[in-house]
Amino acid sequence: MRTHYCGELNGSHDGQEVVLCGWVQRRRDHGGVIFIDLRDREGLVQVVFDPDRAEVFARAEQVRSEYVLKITGRVRPRPAGTVNADLPTGAIEILGLDLEVLNASETPPIQLDTHAADASEELRLRYRYLDLRRPEMQSRLRTRAQVTRMLRGFLDSHGFLDIETPILTKSTPEGARDYLVPSRTHPGEFFALPQSPQLFKQLLMMSGLDRYYQVARCFRDEDLRADRQPEFTQLDIEVSFMTEDELMVLMESMIRDLFRAVSGVDLPDPFPRLTYHEAMRRFGSDRPDLRVPLELIDVADLMAEVDFKVFAGPAQDPDGRVVALRLPKGGELSRKEIDAYTQFVGIYGAKGLAYIKVNEWAAKGREGLQSPIVKNLPDAALNGIMARTGAEDGDLIFFGADKATVVNESIGALRVKLGQERGLMAEGWRPVWVVDFPMFEHDPANQRWVALHHPFTAPKEDQLDRLETDPGACLSRAYDMVLNGTEIGGGSIRIHRDAVQRSVFKLLAIGDEQAEDRFGFLLRALKFGCPPHGGIAFGLDRLVMLMTGATSIRDVMAFPKTQSAACPLTDAPSAVDEAQLKELALRIRLRP
Amino acid sequence: MRTHYCGELNGSHDGQEVVLCGWVQRRRDHGGVIFIDLRDREGLVQVVFDPDRAEVFARAEQVRSEYVLKITGRVRPRPAGTVNADLPTGAIEILGLDLEVLNASETPPIQLDTHAADASEELRLRYRYLDLRRPEMQSRLRTRAQVTRMLRGFLDSHGFLDIETPILTKSTPEGARDYLVPSRTHPGEFFALPQSPQLFKQLLMMSGLDRYYQVARCFRDEDLRADRQPEFTQLDIEVSFMTEDELMVLMESMIRDLFRAVSGVDLPDPFPRLTYHEAMRRFGSDRPDLRVPLELIDVADLMAEVDFKVFAGPAQDPDGRVVALRLPKGGELSRKEIDAYTQFVGIYGAKGLAYIKVNEWAAKGREGLQSPIVKNLPDAALNGIMARTGAEDGDLIFFGADKATVVNESIGALRVKLGQERGLMAEGWRPVWVVDFPMFEHDPANQRWVALHHPFTAPKEDQLDRLETDPGACLSRAYDMVLNGTEIGGGSIRIHRDAVQRSVFKLLAIGDEQAEDRFGFLLRALKFGCPPHGGIAFGLDRLVMLMTGATSIRDVMAFPKTQSAACPLTDAPSAVDEAQLKELALRIRLRP
Repeated sequence: MRTHYCGELNGSHDGQEVVLCGWVQRRRDHGGVIFIDLRDREGLVQVVFDPDRAEVFARAEQVRSEYVLKITGRVRPRPAGTVNADLPTGAIEILGLDLEVLNASETPPIQLDTHAADASEELRLRYRYLDLRRPEMQSRLRTRAQVTRMLRGFLDSHGFLDIETPILTKSTPEGARDYLVPSRTHPGEFFALPQSPQLFKQLLMMSGLDRYYQVARCFRDEDLRADRQPEFTQLDIEVSFMTEDELMVLMESMIRDLFRAVSGVDLPDPFPRLTYHEAMRRFGSDRPDLRVPLELIDVADLMAEVDFKVFAGPAQDPDGRVVALRLPKGGELSRKEIDAYTQFVGIYGAKGLAYIKVNEWAAKGREGLQSPIVKNLPDAALNGIMARTGAEDGDLIFFGADKATVVNESIGALRVKLGQERGLMAEGWRPVWVVDFPMFEHDPANQRWVALHHPFTAPKEDQLDRLETDPGACLSRAYDMVLNGTEIGGGSIRIHRDAVQRSVFKLLAIGDEQAEDRFGFLLRALKFGCPPHGGIAFGLDRLVMLMTGATSIRDVMAFPKTQSAACPLTDAPSAVDEAQLKELALRIRLRP
Repeated sequence: MRTHYCGELNGSHDGQEVVLCGWVQRRRDHGGVIFIDLRDREGLVQVVFDPDRAEVFARAEQVRSEYVLKITGRVRPRPAGTVNADLPTGAIEILGLDLEVLNASETPPIQLDTHAADASEELRLRYRYLDLRRPEMQSRLRTRAQVTRMLRGFLDSHGFLDIETPILTKSTPEGARDYLVPSRTHPGEFFALPQSPQLFKQLLMMSGLDRYYQVARCFRDEDLRADRQPEFTQLDIEVSFMTEDELMVLMESMIRDLFRAVSGVDLPDPFPRLTYHEAMRRFGSDRPDLRVPLELIDVADLMAEVDFKVFAGPAQDPDGRVVALRLPKGGELSRKEIDAYTQFVGIYGAKGLAYIKVNEWAAKGREGLQSPIVKNLPDAALNGIMARTGAEDGDLIFFGADKATVVNESIGALRVKLGQERGLMAEGWRPVWVVDFPMFEHDPANQRWVALHHPFTAPKEDQLDRLETDPGACLSRAYDMVLNGTEIGGGSIRIHRDAVQRSVFKLLAIGDEQAEDRFGFLLRALKFGCPPHGGIAFGLDRLVMLMTGATSIRDVMAFPKTQSAACPLTDAPSAVDEAQLKELALRIRLRP
């Protein structure tokens, strides 16, 4: 129906007759002439209607915003002085020769110009088809399609097979809540929607398919406090007969290729690697944002003997941790700002936020420090702190002292927040692999071990005996890819021997019966020549969010759900007929 | 962990030391030497272990079928006289230098050689990871991945955007039963899994995205008598500002490119087109298999006055049809074969299968015909039939006389069956577009109109008035792509004006309230500048089934379900905890 997209026209089309289809971005009547900015996926172009062509002009007069038009016109240069350098088509305009209104539009309930993002998210989601007309939203969806295409292209060219796994399946072991689907043919029984294709991709390796990938929809029925969605997409990958090192090298080259192609950026080659232990020690986090040049510095040894319980207690506690965090030029912080940071660390369970302002340490020593806690610290401790942090006059030193988990979470988060708010963030992209994770964490509340990744993660080959002797010290063959403080991918070499898998289930207090019931098919499959294998999964939504600079994964999905897992556009979920429920052998349970 | 795939080795690798990983297809001990056929995704290679290397030889002796091995060895030509020309690697063998057992295997419950397909499907699905080790199954999954890649590539290069639409959504209008997903956060309410992304892709056109595609999972909770699956995959496509003709030309060029690339076949350019009316008339089906050179020939006019109710009744009934189907050389059919065909058409509701064997028409006239019905037919009718069918001596003419629907179904099916069983089927691929479908069919049982496609299909622009005056005569802008008698794709130009959409809903007896409840969001969206748009969806499973020569879509899916919609591998669906049900505000209803 058209000859060109609006946005692709330029001086090279001068004199051509073109047919365009698109939406009215704006109509202006000026000097007896009508100007229509016509918009399509590729951009805007200005169309001019002259009163000489009375019939067409009359039709143009009826046109309003968001009308859908088919316009025939001739490309011509804009008159001198009216060229718009901000617009790719700004050197030309179209003289309107014919105009057909393909459809009318009521006045949109959200503005489609630059202020559209100001509309409430509820309204934007309810009228998503209008929100998606905004170039910003279209650009994000286009980048998403491009990212997916690049990733697929890389994997295709490396011999990976795109294989679909079921959506109607059995409850999976990721540990979050499953979405359930009642079966009509097996009354009282349910499918679960997959939290990931984990077990299926392992089965594909047992099938000898060697290299698998899938852009896979995954589902988690979680409370959506954070930026999460009930359904999300992961790039799911599994390979046989590869070591973790080979797989990591391959995967980071894929991500490097992606950033080069889509963002025109060269990521480091190779990506740096941090052990879990080092990441926690230096950054208080296993997904450290390396753009922030601040580090946690352990000072427990300096504090163990001080006459100040707040520090000495955690310093002496085997589960405790005491750290200093030096903020260069932090001396500028006001009391109010420090209070705000104190409140911030409180979110993570910290009971306070001790600090020292370094005013004139070099000249005045202890007297040159400004702090509520200095009086509690002997010279040895103070000297140690100053030496170890390398603090200079004008700096500020924050302290965390508590259970290690609280210190890591609170001071780790403070480190990133200071980076953002104090202008310390380096530009660009800082990927890092985190490796050598522990296999297990101890859950003191329930007195049991829980898997840090999932129960199919292989322990390091030379630490198999620790499964028996010291589970807490046993490291896994897992690896996470972290980019600017966000985990964009995570995976592991999997257990391929049934005896090891049974040991791990036992350690996780998954009894024989439960193991058979939930994972019997996997344990059976392990007996028939399971190859060594491993894989990784990338969170596609989050990756695209980072690459497009969006602030929420909802902005890189065409039809996301709200925080209460509902869709304001279609009104899903909704009530269903009693007859449907009956067919599914279900009854609604009335809440007490 | 390896240097090569087993199946890629050949004479050019002579003398190289290689490391291979794979499965033991077979071990033979012969002349004091051990031969192991090692298998991986790319094929088989023979490895020879000499008793001189005592340690490695001893390890090779322990090896059994389906063990997973890592073998280091040296490529060498096979000795003269032992070259296996049937095997791509058959010119060489590997002298085994080292062998590591990566994993053992119990004896597989299904054989993995050529007889594996003989195992019951239940067993094959239960041990799917073994079934998938068979080269035939791997080849199908590889072709599927290749087909998907080619289709994506075509669409990407034509400016289509790959956009994901929700799986957790609102009940869709395809008319089959939905799978439901209870919402935990909205107790008593349900999501539905999409039967297709139909409404979302239309919304994407209203969003101005112009060209969309998605390899989309779809779900239908139907009784699976035919070769259907609860979840299946369609290549879903939608465009704005294109006529049906432009879209059909683009889509058939995509399918031509696909067959050229994957199957090395040139499909016709352009595809032939048949109207619905002509397809029904000539083939009794709107998905005619053009490989069969037989056609239904209308003879009602010849039969209207005959003194034989079986023919005269339907000939005089406005809803009746009387056809002849000439089977060249059908005179060879035995009584028993004719009885079998009579039984066959009975499946489709035909009450009998009249026939005439043409023994010696030319020489003997009426006496040269052999048939239980000839005595009932006057000369004029007989002469008319013989002339119109062009039957020659040695042929047989079948007849169908009943309601048109019964005749079309039964004789249409007989036509294809005769094509298959009487060696009449042409080789190769015969695509055809079927167009000019009626908008509606009349459902006499419920005295109402039903949509032949779906309620969003646009009527032909010049027939809008028939919506009021003669709905049964109103043709739609729908088109189906049919290949060798299978509908592989279907679509239409959609309604883009809300007044037309409301008229169609009204005709389909979808009241205002129900329309608002089910499709309110669509009706609302139509008010805000909906562009003219249309699309198509291809059944990917069925397309790949055809291209791989598989006989069931289950054979082109990695993890299909059984006819009772269950997965013997994982035992899904299965019971869930009472606590989970409680969280979802559900109770199991006990059957009476």
